[in-house]
Amino acid sequence: MHPFTNHLPDSVAALGETGLITAIRRWLGDVSPRAPFGIGDDCAVLPAFRGPQLITVDPVIYGRHFDDTVPARAAGAKLLKRNLSDIAAMGGRPVSAVLAITLDARVSLRWLELFYRGLATVARRHHVAVVGGDIAEVAHGVSACLTLLGAATGPRILTRSGARAGDWIYVTGELGGSRSSGHHFRFAPRLAEGAWLARRAEVRAMMDVSDGLAKDLPALTPSGTTAALDESAVPLRGRVGLRAALTDGEDYELLLAVASRADRAALARAWRRRFPKTRLTCIGRFRRTGTPPTAELTLNDYRGYEHFR
Amino acid sequence: MHPFTNHLPDSVAALGETGLITAIRRWLGDVSPRAPFGIGDDCAVLPAFRGPQLITVDPVIYGRHFDDTVPARAAGAKLLKRNLSDIAAMGGRPVSAVLAITLDARVSLRWLELFYRGLATVARRHHVAVVGGDIAEVAHGVSACLTLLGAATGPRILTRSGARAGDWIYVTGELGGSRSSGHHFRFAPRLAEGAWLARRAEVRAMMDVSDGLAKDLPALTPSGTTAALDESAVPLRGRVGLRAALTDGEDYELLLAVASRADRAALARAWRRRFPKTRLTCIGRFRRTGTPPTAELTLNDYRGYEHFR
Repeated sequence: MHPFTNHLPDSVAALGETGLITAIRRWLGDVSPRAPFGIGDDCAVLPAFRGPQLITVDPVIYGRHFDDTVPARAAGAKLLKRNLSDIAAMGGRPVSAVLAITLDARVSLRWLELFYRGLATVARRHHVAVVGGDIAEVAHGVSACLTLLGAATGPRILTRSGARAGDWIYVTGELGGSRSSGHHFRFAPRLAEGAWLARRAEVRAMMDVSDGLAKDLPALTPSGTTAALDESAVPLRGRVGLRAALTDGEDYELLLAVASRADRAALARAWRRRFPKTRLTCIGRFRRTGTPPTAELTLNDYRGYEHFR
Repeated sequence: MHPFTNHLPDSVAALGETGLITAIRRWLGDVSPRAPFGIGDDCAVLPAFRGPQLITVDPVIYGRHFDDTVPARAAGAKLLKRNLSDIAAMGGRPVSAVLAITLDARVSLRWLELFYRGLATVARRHHVAVVGGDIAEVAHGVSACLTLLGAATGPRILTRSGARAGDWIYVTGELGGSRSSGHHFRFAPRLAEGAWLARRAEVRAMMDVSDGLAKDLPALTPSGTTAALDESAVPLRGRVGLRAALTDGEDYELLLAVASRADRAALARAWRRRFPKTRLTCIGRFRRTGTPPTAELTLNDYRGYEHFR
């Protein structure tokens, strides 16, 4: 859906900033608590909370993270889901969010309403309160930046560090072709899967795949090791090729390291019972650098998505 | 300072995204904690914390909140200071921040370095940890969005609601001419003043003046009352006129309601002892709507800064 209109009465300029804030609160509905716990004061007040918190920030930008082929509701949903995927990657659960939006005065009210309603639907599903925000006018385009706070779901927060030489490399779902298939806005963030994996002692480290496996996997790879992949094991989305699976990005899948001595058959059985519709695939192993070369694939020839390249 | 360069080796494109993240961590220095407590994982982990938290979000956008006349360091400092002013308005103290930046590939590395170093200087002064962020490439311009978390400094968080009929209206510092004087980027956020005022029982409600008194004061005004201002009392910045003082915006001063029966002389003395260089001015009173009209100024003829108008 095209976000802009040349018909002034249908645009955000017709409502003005104050009217727009009122409308946004209506569109958000019950996911927008009352001030001071929500929109309407200089800050929002978050009730006291036990234990460590998680925080992450990600934007969506017109022309980069969505375009006219993406429904407005899906663009709003994607903004929250990108951040939810980061919370999932730590085994956490989301709690509250703030959202700063920048708009050109020609953005259509209908587009903006659907954007916020799409975001609110995802927020409701995952019990996220949208507690604050900001609106600013820009000369061109539309973009929004969401900061998400979360909490641990169990005794452990899983980070990217913790993998060791010999550990197995697993990935959820399928990789590649995210743009062409629409997966980049239709994906469901792996919150339940992340929380479940964080409770499995054999899982040592985790992250989400957002820039493509080739770019992201090095962050999970322990120093002194090389990620040796089994080319034929990489789960492909639809008919994409290996290069697409390694470099396209926007997969929003979980990538994890499983202890070398783990009972992998037991892990596979438990996973299938809990998540029968989602694949969990072993795609390789962290080998000590300098061990004799094998037929396995390494990622030196591939690059994931990188800005400014 | 102009943020862009046509000389590729001096631009962010020369460094690429990964190199840029490394450089940003270096520029931030000791205000950037190590992962998982800072930049480098899917989320940052915030240590457990007692009591309620404050959260606010504000951007700076090239061409709107800063331009070529604003030094790069001052633009970065302004991004954090705008958010600090919101924390000050609740009587809070800042704790940690995340920062999402969008850059056109022609942004100069030198400009970006100074932007982050300017921000880091303010963060250091106020003990703010920059714990996470995001970088995204855009076709044109440069903007950054900062989310700031804070905490109470004492037993009370001051909100915008709480003023009653008869309460006195006070403002810190001076109003108006923020753009022309450079105050919009040179201001010092009123954190010490806000924390001090939150401990004074006679202060009933507080907010910051960011869009101009005419637009902001209604948010502090109790229902059934009108803000009656003493025209001659409004503290003017330099030689600005009354209209500028009421409507220019970007004042980043504190606006507060003081209980009608307060010992105002005692308040004034205590303020002067603690903040001898900063004015605290009584500019009017909340009068019950329908009381006989006086010679006092009301704000119906003035408007503050409003986007999309």
